[in-house]
Amino acid sequence: MKTLHIFKTGGKVIEDPEMLESFLHTFAAAEGPKILVHGGGKTATELAAKLGVPQQFNEGRRITDADTLDIAVMVYAGLINKRIVASLQSLGCNAAGFCGADGNIVRTKKRVHPQIDYGLVGDAGPDSVNRKLLNDLLDAGLVPVFCAITHDGNGNLLNTNADTMAAEIACALSERYETELTYCFEHSGVLRDKADETSLLPKMDPAIYAELKASGAISDGMIPKLDNAFAALERGVKKVIVCRANQPGTGTTLLREMKQQLS
Amino acid sequence: MKTLHIFKTGGKVIEDPEMLESFLHTFAAAEGPKILVHGGGKTATELAAKLGVPQQFNEGRRITDADTLDIAVMVYAGLINKRIVASLQSLGCNAAGFCGADGNIVRTKKRVHPQIDYGLVGDAGPDSVNRKLLNDLLDAGLVPVFCAITHDGNGNLLNTNADTMAAEIACALSERYETELTYCFEHSGVLRDKADETSLLPKMDPAIYAELKASGAISDGMIPKLDNAFAALERGVKKVIVCRANQPGTGTTLLREMKQQLS
Repeated sequence: MKTLHIFKTGGKVIEDPEMLESFLHTFAAAEGPKILVHGGGKTATELAAKLGVPQQFNEGRRITDADTLDIAVMVYAGLINKRIVASLQSLGCNAAGFCGADGNIVRTKKRVHPQIDYGLVGDAGPDSVNRKLLNDLLDAGLVPVFCAITHDGNGNLLNTNADTMAAEIACALSERYETELTYCFEHSGVLRDKADETSLLPKMDPAIYAELKASGAISDGMIPKLDNAFAALERGVKKVIVCRANQPGTGTTLLREMKQQLS
Repeated sequence: MKTLHIFKTGGKVIEDPEMLESFLHTFAAAEGPKILVHGGGKTATELAAKLGVPQQFNEGRRITDADTLDIAVMVYAGLINKRIVASLQSLGCNAAGFCGADGNIVRTKKRVHPQIDYGLVGDAGPDSVNRKLLNDLLDAGLVPVFCAITHDGNGNLLNTNADTMAAEIACALSERYETELTYCFEHSGVLRDKADETSLLPKMDPAIYAELKASGAISDGMIPKLDNAFAALERGVKKVIVCRANQPGTGTTLLREMKQQLS
Protein backbone atom coordinates (compact mmCIF):
# COMPACT_ATOMS: atom_id res chain seq x y z
CA MET A 1 0.00 0.00 0.00
CA LYS A 2 1.04 3.58 -0.71
CA THR A 3 1.76 5.88 2.21
CA LEU A 4 -0.58 8.84 2.72
CA HIS A 5 0.50 11.70 4.98
CA ILE A 6 -2.16 13.61 6.91
CA PHE A 7 -0.83 16.78 8.52
CA LYS A 8 -2.77 18.76 11.12
CA THR A 9 -1.81 22.24 12.20
CA GLY A 10 -3.47 25.15 13.96
CA GLY A 11 -3.11 27.50 16.93
CA LYS A 12 0.15 29.40 17.12
CA VAL A 13 1.40 28.04 13.77
CA ILE A 14 -1.58 29.61 11.97
CA GLU A 15 -1.32 32.85 13.96
CA ASP A 16 2.37 33.50 13.25
CA PRO A 17 2.95 34.37 9.55
CA GLU A 18 6.60 33.24 9.63
CA MET A 19 5.85 29.95 11.34
CA LEU A 20 2.98 29.32 8.90
CA GLU A 21 5.13 30.07 5.87
CA SER A 22 7.86 27.77 7.16
CA PHE A 23 5.31 25.01 7.78
CA LEU A 24 3.77 25.43 4.30
CA HIS A 25 7.20 25.10 2.67
CA THR A 26 7.74 21.89 4.62
CA PHE A 27 4.28 20.58 3.72
CA ALA A 28 4.67 21.49 0.03
CA ALA A 29 7.97 19.59 -0.06
CA ALA A 30 6.57 16.39 1.48
CA GLU A 31 6.47 13.62 -1.13
CA GLY A 32 3.55 11.42 -2.10
CA PRO A 33 -0.18 11.90 -1.55
CA LYS A 34 -0.99 14.17 1.37
CA ILE A 35 -3.78 16.03 3.13
CA LEU A 36 -3.72 19.09 5.36
CA VAL A 37 -6.26 19.79 8.10
CA HIS A 38 -5.98 23.21 9.71
CA GLY A 39 -7.45 24.87 12.77
CA GLY A 40 -8.00 28.57 13.15
CA GLY A 41 -5.86 30.22 15.78
CA LYS A 42 -7.05 33.45 17.34
CA THR A 43 -8.31 35.20 14.19
CA ALA A 44 -11.93 34.17 14.78
CA THR A 45 -11.84 35.38 18.39
CA GLU A 46 -10.32 38.68 17.26
CA LEU A 47 -12.96 39.15 14.55
CA ALA A 48 -15.72 38.36 17.08
CA ALA A 49 -14.32 41.07 19.37
CA LYS A 50 -14.25 43.60 16.50
CA LEU A 51 -17.84 42.76 15.58
CA GLY A 52 -19.02 42.84 19.19
CA VAL A 53 -20.11 39.20 19.17
CA PRO A 54 -19.63 37.94 22.76
CA GLN A 55 -17.84 34.60 23.04
CA GLN A 56 -19.24 32.21 25.63
CA PHE A 57 -17.23 29.43 27.14
CA ASN A 58 -18.16 26.51 29.34
CA GLU A 59 -15.24 24.98 31.21
CA GLY A 60 -12.86 26.37 28.60
CA ARG A 61 -14.86 25.13 25.63
CA ARG A 62 -16.36 27.61 23.23
CA ILE A 63 -20.13 27.72 22.74
CA THR A 64 -20.85 28.20 19.03
CA ASP A 65 -23.96 30.35 18.60
CA ALA A 66 -25.21 31.39 15.14
CA ASP A 67 -23.11 34.58 14.93
CA THR A 68 -20.01 32.74 16.13
CA LEU A 69 -20.54 30.04 13.51
CA ASP A 70 -20.77 32.68 10.76
CA ILE A 71 -17.46 34.11 11.98
CA ALA A 72 -15.87 30.64 12.08
CA VAL A 73 -17.05 29.92 8.53
CA MET A 74 -15.74 33.27 7.27
CA VAL A 75 -12.35 32.91 8.95
CA TYR A 76 -11.67 29.17 8.71
CA ALA A 77 -13.37 28.22 5.41
CA GLY A 78 -12.73 31.63 3.84
CA LEU A 79 -9.69 33.63 4.86
CA ILE A 80 -7.36 31.01 6.36
CA ASN A 81 -8.23 28.16 4.01
CA LYS A 82 -7.92 30.19 0.81
CA ARG A 83 -4.73 31.96 1.91
CA ILE A 84 -3.15 28.56 2.63
CA VAL A 85 -4.32 27.21 -0.74
CA ALA A 86 -2.97 30.22 -2.66
CA SER A 87 0.38 29.94 -0.84
CA LEU A 88 0.69 26.22 -1.50
CA GLN A 89 -0.21 26.72 -5.17
CA SER A 90 2.61 29.27 -5.45
CA LEU A 91 4.95 26.62 -4.00
CA GLY A 92 4.03 24.10 -6.70
CA CYS A 93 1.68 22.10 -4.45
CA ASN A 94 -1.68 21.44 -6.13
CA ALA A 95 -3.79 22.33 -3.08
CA ALA A 96 -7.58 22.58 -3.11
CA GLY A 97 -9.52 23.80 -0.08
CA PHE A 98 -12.57 22.08 1.33
CA CYS A 99 -14.91 22.22 4.24
CA GLY A 100 -16.84 19.12 5.20
CA ALA A 101 -19.95 20.26 3.30
CA ASP A 102 -18.11 20.32 -0.03
CA GLY A 103 -19.00 17.12 -1.86
CA ASN A 104 -20.38 15.90 1.50
CA ILE A 105 -16.78 14.97 2.39
CA VAL A 106 -17.23 15.16 6.17
CA ARG A 107 -20.73 14.97 7.57
CA THR A 108 -21.16 15.30 11.32
CA LYS A 109 -23.91 15.25 13.93
CA LYS A 110 -24.73 18.19 16.15
CA ARG A 111 -23.31 17.47 19.58
CA VAL A 112 -25.89 16.43 22.15
CA HIS A 113 -24.66 16.84 25.70
CA PRO A 114 -26.82 16.08 28.75
CA GLN A 115 -25.94 19.30 30.61
CA ILE A 116 -24.35 21.77 28.22
CA ASP A 117 -25.59 23.09 24.89
CA TYR A 118 -22.39 23.64 22.89
CA GLY A 119 -24.45 25.15 20.10
CA LEU A 120 -23.63 24.59 16.44
CA VAL A 121 -20.87 22.05 17.01
CA GLY A 122 -20.60 18.86 14.98
CA ASP A 123 -18.79 15.75 16.16
CA ALA A 124 -17.03 13.65 13.55
CA GLY A 125 -17.29 9.89 13.85
CA PRO A 126 -16.36 6.75 11.93
CA ASP A 127 -19.11 7.25 9.32
CA SER A 128 -18.39 10.93 8.77
CA VAL A 129 -15.84 10.67 5.97
CA ASN A 130 -16.72 10.27 2.28
CA ARG A 131 -13.87 7.89 1.34
CA LYS A 132 -14.89 7.59 -2.29
CA LEU A 133 -14.65 11.30 -3.03
CA LEU A 134 -11.43 11.76 -1.04
CA ASN A 135 -9.86 8.92 -3.00
CA ASP A 136 -11.04 10.48 -6.28
CA LEU A 137 -9.54 13.85 -5.31
CA LEU A 138 -6.21 12.24 -4.37
CA ASP A 139 -6.23 10.24 -7.61
CA ALA A 140 -6.79 13.49 -9.54
CA GLY A 141 -3.50 14.74 -8.07
CA LEU A 142 -5.08 17.22 -5.70
CA VAL A 143 -3.81 17.97 -2.21
CA PRO A 144 -6.94 18.48 -0.10
CA VAL A 145 -6.73 21.26 2.49
CA PHE A 146 -9.49 21.04 5.10
CA CYS A 147 -10.81 23.55 7.53
CA ALA A 148 -12.80 22.09 10.40
CA ILE A 149 -16.21 23.32 9.30
CA THR A 150 -18.58 20.44 8.52
CA HIS A 151 -22.29 20.03 7.78
CA ASP A 152 -25.12 17.82 9.00
CA GLY A 153 -26.62 17.02 5.59
CA ASN A 154 -29.73 19.05 6.43
CA GLY A 155 -28.35 22.36 5.28
CA ASN A 156 -26.59 23.33 8.51
CA LEU A 157 -22.90 24.10 8.83
CA LEU A 158 -21.25 23.00 12.08
CA ASN A 159 -18.03 23.90 13.88
CA THR A 160 -15.83 20.83 14.40
CA ASN A 161 -12.64 20.04 16.28
CA ALA A 162 -9.77 19.99 13.79
CA ASP A 163 -7.73 17.36 15.68
CA THR A 164 -10.68 14.96 15.62
CA MET A 165 -11.36 15.71 11.96
CA ALA A 166 -7.76 14.92 11.02
CA ALA A 167 -7.90 11.65 12.98
CA GLU A 168 -11.20 10.58 11.38
CA ILE A 169 -9.87 11.33 7.88
CA ALA A 170 -6.71 9.34 8.63
CA CYS A 171 -8.71 6.39 10.00
CA ALA A 172 -11.11 6.40 7.03
CA LEU A 173 -8.28 6.30 4.50
CA SER A 174 -6.37 3.54 6.32
CA GLU A 175 -8.28 0.96 4.27
CA ARG A 176 -6.46 2.04 1.15
CA TYR A 177 -3.28 3.71 2.37
CA GLU A 178 -0.62 3.26 5.02
CA THR A 179 -1.58 6.44 6.86
CA GLU A 180 0.76 8.66 8.81
CA LEU A 181 -0.86 11.35 10.91
CA THR A 182 1.39 14.24 11.93
CA TYR A 183 0.26 16.85 14.46
CA CYS A 184 2.37 19.94 13.75
CA PHE A 185 2.59 22.57 16.47
CA GLU A 186 4.96 25.08 18.05
CA HIS A 187 6.86 22.64 20.30
CA SER A 188 9.42 20.01 19.41
CA GLY A 189 7.05 17.19 20.41
CA VAL A 190 5.76 15.68 23.63
CA LEU A 191 7.96 16.95 26.45
CA ARG A 192 8.69 15.33 29.82
CA ASP A 193 9.04 18.87 31.18
CA LYS A 194 6.89 21.48 29.44
CA ALA A 195 9.43 24.24 30.22
CA ASP A 196 12.31 22.33 28.65
CA GLU A 197 12.27 21.77 24.87
CA THR A 198 15.21 19.38 25.21
CA SER A 199 13.13 16.98 27.34
CA LEU A 200 11.55 15.61 24.15
CA LEU A 201 10.24 12.07 24.26
CA PRO A 202 11.23 10.49 20.93
CA LYS A 203 8.72 7.67 21.45
CA MET A 204 5.66 7.19 23.61
CA ASP A 205 3.13 4.40 24.19
CA PRO A 206 -0.13 4.39 26.20
CA ALA A 207 1.70 3.22 29.36
CA ILE A 208 4.11 6.16 29.31
CA TYR A 209 1.23 8.49 28.39
CA ALA A 210 -0.72 7.37 31.48
CA GLU A 211 2.36 7.91 33.63
CA LEU A 212 2.96 11.43 32.28
CA LYS A 213 -0.70 12.38 32.69
CA ALA A 214 -0.58 11.19 36.32
CA SER A 215 2.56 13.23 37.02
CA GLY A 216 1.02 16.34 35.41
CA ALA A 217 3.75 16.56 32.75
CA ILE A 218 1.03 16.28 30.08
CA SER A 219 -2.04 18.43 30.67
CA ASP A 220 -4.68 20.71 29.16
CA GLY A 221 -4.98 20.73 25.37
CA MET A 222 -2.45 17.96 24.88
CA ILE A 223 -4.76 15.41 26.52
CA PRO A 224 -7.60 15.37 23.95
CA LYS A 225 -4.97 15.58 21.15
CA LEU A 226 -3.12 12.52 22.44
CA ASP A 227 -6.33 10.64 23.33
CA ASN A 228 -7.37 11.11 19.70
CA ALA A 229 -3.97 10.11 18.45
CA PHE A 230 -3.75 6.85 20.41
CA ALA A 231 -7.34 6.00 19.41
CA ALA A 232 -6.36 6.50 15.75
CA LEU A 233 -3.51 3.99 16.14
CA GLU A 234 -6.07 1.44 17.37
CA ARG A 235 -8.22 2.16 14.31
CA GLY A 236 -5.76 1.47 11.54
CA VAL A 237 -3.53 4.54 11.36
CA LYS A 238 -0.02 3.26 10.95
CA LYS A 239 1.98 6.03 12.56
CA VAL A 240 1.22 9.15 14.60
CA ILE A 241 3.83 11.86 15.14
CA VAL A 242 3.67 15.04 17.21
CA CYS A 243 6.33 17.51 16.09
CA ARG A 244 7.37 21.10 15.51
CA ALA A 245 5.54 22.50 12.47
CA ASN A 246 8.58 22.86 10.22
CA GLN A 247 10.52 19.79 11.41
CA PRO A 248 8.93 16.62 10.08
CA GLY A 249 10.96 13.53 10.80
CA THR A 250 11.62 14.80 14.33
CA GLY A 251 9.29 14.95 17.31
CA THR A 252 7.51 12.25 19.24
CA THR A 253 6.35 9.04 17.56
CA LEU A 254 3.31 7.43 19.19
CA LEU A 255 3.34 3.65 19.32
CA ARG A 256 0.64 1.17 20.25
CA GLU A 257 3.12 -0.61 22.49
CA MET A 258 6.82 -0.33 23.23
CA LYS A 259 8.98 -3.33 23.95
CA GLN A 260 11.59 -1.61 26.10
CA GLN A 261 10.98 1.06 28.72
CA LEU A 262 12.26 4.53 28.02
CA SER A 263 14.40 5.26 31.05
CA MET B 1 -21.95 16.37 -27.05
CA LYS B 2 -23.57 16.51 -23.63
CA THR B 3 -25.16 19.76 -22.49
CA LEU B 4 -23.54 21.54 -19.54
CA HIS B 5 -25.47 24.25 -17.72
CA ILE B 6 -23.56 27.14 -16.15
CA PHE B 7 -25.70 29.32 -13.89
CA LYS B 8 -24.60 32.69 -12.59
CA THR B 9 -26.38 34.51 -9.80
CA GLY B 10 -25.59 37.29 -7.36
CA GLY B 11 -26.81 40.67 -6.12
CA LYS B 12 -30.40 40.75 -4.88
CA VAL B 13 -30.85 36.98 -5.29
CA ILE B 14 -28.02 36.33 -2.83
CA GLU B 15 -29.20 39.06 -0.45
CA ASP B 16 -32.79 37.85 -0.15
CA PRO B 17 -32.99 34.52 1.75
CA GLU B 18 -36.32 33.55 0.14
CA MET B 19 -35.19 34.37 -3.37
CA LEU B 20 -31.94 32.48 -2.78
CA GLU B 21 -33.73 29.43 -1.43
CA SER B 22 -36.11 29.44 -4.38
CA PHE B 23 -33.18 29.73 -6.80
CA LEU B 24 -31.26 26.91 -5.10
CA HIS B 25 -34.30 24.60 -5.38
CA THR B 26 -34.46 25.40 -9.09
CA PHE B 27 -30.73 24.89 -9.54
CA ALA B 28 -30.75 21.60 -7.59
CA ALA B 29 -33.56 20.33 -9.81
CA ALA B 30 -31.80 21.12 -13.11
CA GLU B 31 -30.76 17.91 -14.85
CA GLY B 32 -27.35 16.95 -16.18
CA PRO B 33 -23.91 18.34 -15.38
CA LYS B 34 -24.00 21.89 -14.06
CA ILE B 35 -21.92 24.62 -12.46
CA LEU B 36 -22.91 27.57 -10.31
CA VAL B 37 -20.98 30.84 -10.15
CA HIS B 38 -22.16 33.28 -7.49
CA GLY B 39 -21.50 36.90 -6.68
CA GLY B 40 -21.76 38.42 -3.25
CA GLY B 41 -24.56 40.91 -2.82
CA LYS B 42 -24.27 43.54 -0.12
CA THR B 43 -22.92 41.34 2.70
CA ALA B 44 -19.30 42.31 2.07
CA THR B 45 -20.14 46.02 2.04
CA GLU B 46 -22.11 45.62 5.28
CA LEU B 47 -19.24 43.73 6.95
CA ALA B 48 -16.78 46.42 5.82
CA ALA B 49 -19.00 49.06 7.45
CA LYS B 50 -19.17 47.08 10.72
CA LEU B 51 -15.38 46.69 10.72
CA GLY B 52 -14.79 50.33 9.85
CA VAL B 53 -13.01 49.50 6.58
CA PRO B 54 -13.75 52.40 4.22
CA GLN B 55 -14.85 51.37 0.73
CA GLN B 56 -13.37 53.40 -2.11
CA PHE B 57 -14.97 53.63 -5.51
CA ASN B 58 -13.81 55.05 -8.80
CA GLU B 59 -16.61 55.79 -11.27
CA GLY B 60 -18.82 53.28 -9.49
CA ARG B 61 -16.21 50.52 -9.41
CA ARG B 62 -14.92 49.27 -6.11
CA ILE B 63 -11.21 49.58 -5.31
CA THR B 64 -10.09 46.37 -3.58
CA ASP B 65 -7.44 47.20 -0.98
CA ALA B 66 -5.93 44.50 1.26
CA ASP B 67 -8.57 44.81 4.01
CA THR B 68 -11.38 44.78 1.46
CA LEU B 69 -9.94 41.66 -0.18
CA ASP B 70 -9.86 39.88 3.19
CA ILE B 71 -13.52 40.79 3.67
CA ALA B 72 -14.39 39.58 0.16
CA VAL B 73 -12.59 36.28 0.77
CA MET B 74 -14.35 35.78 4.12
CA VAL B 75 -17.80 36.60 2.77
CA TYR B 76 -17.68 35.15 -0.78
CA ALA B 77 -15.37 32.12 -0.36
CA GLY B 78 -16.44 31.50 3.24
CA LEU B 79 -19.93 32.43 4.33
CA ILE B 80 -21.89 32.63 1.08
CA ASN B 81 -20.13 29.78 -0.72
CA LYS B 82 -20.38 27.30 2.15
CA ARG B 83 -23.99 28.22 2.98
CA ILE B 84 -24.95 27.60 -0.65
CA VAL B 85 -23.05 24.29 -0.69
CA ALA B 86 -24.68 23.07 2.54
CA SER B 87 -28.13 24.04 1.23
CA LEU B 88 -27.59 22.30 -2.10
CA GLN B 89 -26.29 19.18 -0.34
CA SER B 90 -29.49 19.09 1.73
CA LEU B 91 -31.45 19.23 -1.54
CA GLY B 92 -29.66 16.17 -2.92
CA CYS B 93 -27.33 18.17 -5.17
CA ASN B 94 -23.69 17.07 -4.79
CA ALA B 95 -22.27 20.60 -4.61
CA ALA B 96 -18.64 21.39 -3.80
CA GLY B 97 -17.44 24.97 -3.32
CA PHE B 98 -14.35 26.40 -4.96
CA CYS B 99 -12.51 29.63 -5.39
CA GLY B 100 -10.17 30.03 -8.34
CA ALA B 101 -7.10 29.19 -6.21
CA ASP B 102 -8.43 25.72 -5.36
CA GLY B 103 -6.67 23.29 -7.66
CA ASN B 104 -5.57 26.33 -9.68
CA ILE B 105 -9.00 26.21 -11.34
CA VAL B 106 -9.15 29.89 -12.29
CA ARG B 107 -5.93 31.83 -12.42
CA THR B 108 -6.11 35.54 -13.23
CA LYS B 109 -3.82 38.51 -13.70
CA LYS B 110 -3.92 41.60 -11.52
CA ARG B 111 -5.64 44.34 -13.47
CA VAL B 112 -3.30 46.96 -14.88
CA HIS B 113 -5.08 50.17 -15.79
CA PRO B 114 -3.26 53.23 -17.15
CA GLN B 115 -5.06 55.71 -14.85
CA ILE B 116 -6.73 53.86 -11.99
CA ASP B 117 -5.30 51.36 -9.53
CA TYR B 118 -8.23 49.02 -8.85
CA GLY B 119 -6.14 47.22 -6.24
CA LEU B 120 -6.31 43.48 -5.76
CA VAL B 121 -8.56 42.74 -8.72
CA GLY B 122 -7.91 39.87 -11.12
CA ASP B 123 -9.20 39.74 -14.67
CA ALA B 124 -10.12 36.34 -16.07
CA GLY B 125 -9.17 35.59 -19.66
CA PRO B 126 -9.16 32.73 -22.16
CA ASP B 127 -6.22 30.96 -20.46
CA SER B 128 -7.58 31.35 -16.92
CA VAL B 129 -9.59 28.15 -16.65
CA ASN B 130 -8.12 24.74 -15.75
CA ARG B 131 -10.28 22.63 -18.08
CA LYS B 132 -8.69 19.34 -17.07
CA LEU B 133 -9.57 19.65 -13.39
CA LEU B 134 -13.06 21.02 -14.06
CA ASN B 135 -13.73 18.05 -16.34
CA ASP B 136 -12.43 15.66 -13.64
CA LEU B 137 -14.70 17.22 -11.02
CA LEU B 138 -17.73 17.00 -13.30
CA ASP B 139 -16.84 13.38 -14.16
CA ALA B 140 -16.66 12.63 -10.42
CA GLY B 141 -20.32 13.70 -10.20
CA LEU B 142 -19.63 16.95 -8.39
CA VAL B 143 -21.51 20.18 -8.95
CA PRO B 144 -18.87 22.92 -8.68
CA VAL B 145 -20.01 26.11 -6.93
CA PHE B 146 -17.67 29.03 -7.56
CA CYS B 147 -17.25 32.28 -5.78
CA ALA B 148 -15.43 34.95 -7.78
CA ILE B 149 -12.20 34.97 -5.78
CA THR B 150 -9.23 33.87 -7.89
CA HIS B 151 -5.45 33.79 -7.53
CA ASP B 152 -2.43 34.87 -9.57
CA GLY B 153 -0.32 31.74 -9.00
CA ASN B 154 2.17 33.73 -6.93
CA GLY B 155 0.33 33.31 -3.64
CA ASN B 156 -2.02 36.26 -4.02
CA LEU B 157 -5.81 36.05 -3.93
CA LEU B 158 -7.65 38.46 -6.23
CA ASN B 159 -11.21 39.77 -6.43
CA THR B 160 -12.82 38.95 -9.78
CA ASN B 161 -16.03 39.85 -11.57
CA ALA B 162 -18.44 36.94 -11.24
CA ASP B 163 -20.17 37.56 -14.61
CA THR B 164 -16.81 37.39 -16.41
CA MET B 165 -15.78 34.31 -14.45
CA ALA B 166 -18.99 32.50 -15.41
CA ALA B 167 -18.49 33.43 -19.08
CA GLU B 168 -14.84 32.27 -19.09
CA ILE B 169 -15.77 28.95 -17.49
CA ALA B 170 -18.56 28.46 -20.04
CA CYS B 171 -16.24 29.29 -22.96
CA ALA B 172 -13.48 26.99 -21.67
CA LEU B 173 -15.84 24.02 -21.38
CA SER B 174 -17.41 24.56 -24.81
CA GLU B 175 -14.75 22.29 -26.31
CA ARG B 176 -16.27 19.31 -24.55
CA TYR B 177 -19.87 20.29 -23.84
CA GLU B 178 -22.73 22.12 -25.48
CA THR B 179 -22.68 24.94 -22.95
CA GLU B 180 -25.68 26.94 -21.82
CA LEU B 181 -24.94 30.00 -19.72
CA THR B 182 -27.84 31.34 -17.66
CA TYR B 183 -27.63 34.66 -15.84
CA CYS B 184 -30.17 34.47 -13.01
CA PHE B 185 -31.29 37.72 -11.44
CA GLU B 186 -34.31 39.44 -9.91
CA HIS B 187 -36.00 40.49 -13.16
CA SER B 188 -37.83 38.41 -15.72
CA GLY B 189 -35.11 39.00 -18.33
CA VAL B 190 -34.04 41.84 -20.59
CA LEU B 191 -36.83 44.41 -20.61
CA ARG B 192 -37.72 46.96 -23.28
CA ASP B 193 -38.92 49.18 -20.44
CA LYS B 194 -37.10 48.72 -17.12
CA ALA B 195 -40.20 49.73 -15.15
CA ASP B 196 -42.41 47.15 -16.86
CA GLU B 197 -41.71 43.47 -16.19
CA THR B 198 -44.15 42.53 -18.97
CA SER B 199 -41.96 44.25 -21.60
CA LEU B 200 -39.71 41.19 -21.66
CA LEU B 201 -37.76 40.53 -24.83
CA PRO B 202 -37.93 36.77 -25.41
CA LYS B 203 -35.01 36.96 -27.85
CA MET B 204 -32.26 39.42 -28.53
CA ASP B 205 -29.35 39.68 -30.96
CA PRO B 206 -26.47 42.21 -31.13
CA ALA B 207 -28.46 44.46 -33.48
CA ILE B 208 -31.36 44.78 -31.07
CA TYR B 209 -28.90 45.15 -28.19
CA ALA B 210 -27.25 48.10 -29.91
CA GLU B 211 -30.65 49.67 -30.53
CA LEU B 212 -31.73 49.30 -26.88
CA LYS B 213 -28.43 50.68 -25.60
CA ALA B 214 -28.82 53.69 -27.88
CA SER B 215 -32.35 54.33 -26.64
CA GLY B 216 -31.25 54.01 -22.98
CA ALA B 217 -33.57 51.03 -22.34
CA ILE B 218 -30.49 49.00 -21.37
CA SER B 219 -28.03 50.76 -19.08
CA ASP B 220 -25.71 50.51 -16.07
CA GLY B 221 -24.88 47.02 -14.81
CA MET B 222 -26.71 45.28 -17.65
CA ILE B 223 -24.21 46.56 -20.22
CA PRO B 224 -21.07 44.69 -19.02
CA LYS B 225 -23.25 41.63 -18.34
CA LEU B 226 -24.63 41.60 -21.90
CA ASP B 227 -21.28 42.52 -23.48
CA ASN B 228 -19.85 39.46 -21.73
CA ALA B 229 -22.77 37.32 -22.76
CA PHE B 230 -22.62 38.20 -26.47
CA ALA B 231 -18.84 37.73 -26.46
CA ALA B 232 -19.34 34.25 -24.96
CA LEU B 233 -21.67 33.35 -27.86
CA GLU B 234 -18.87 34.27 -30.28
CA ARG B 235 -16.47 32.03 -28.35
CA GLY B 236 -18.32 28.73 -28.45
CA VAL B 237 -21.07 29.01 -25.85
CA LYS B 238 -24.18 27.57 -27.44
CA LYS B 239 -26.88 29.47 -25.63
CA VAL B 240 -27.06 32.42 -23.23
CA ILE B 241 -30.20 33.18 -21.23
CA VAL B 242 -30.97 36.06 -18.89
CA CYS B 243 -33.88 35.19 -16.59
CA ARG B 244 -35.50 35.46 -13.20
CA ALA B 245 -33.58 33.37 -10.66
CA ASN B 246 -36.26 30.77 -10.06
CA GLN B 247 -37.71 30.64 -13.58
CA PRO B 248 -35.38 28.80 -15.91
CA GLY B 249 -36.83 28.19 -19.33
CA THR B 250 -38.23 31.73 -19.36
CA GLY B 251 -36.41 35.04 -19.79
CA THR B 252 -34.43 36.41 -22.70
CA THR B 253 -32.43 34.16 -25.00
CA LEU B 254 -29.40 35.83 -26.58
CA LEU B 255 -28.68 34.86 -30.16
CA ARG B 256 -25.71 35.54 -32.40
CA GLU B 257 -28.09 36.62 -35.12
CA MET B 258 -31.82 36.64 -35.62
CA LYS B 259 -33.43 35.96 -38.97
CA GLN B 260 -36.62 37.93 -38.47
CA GLN B 261 -36.97 41.28 -36.77
CA LEU B 262 -38.83 41.35 -33.46
CA SER B 263 -41.41 44.04 -33.99
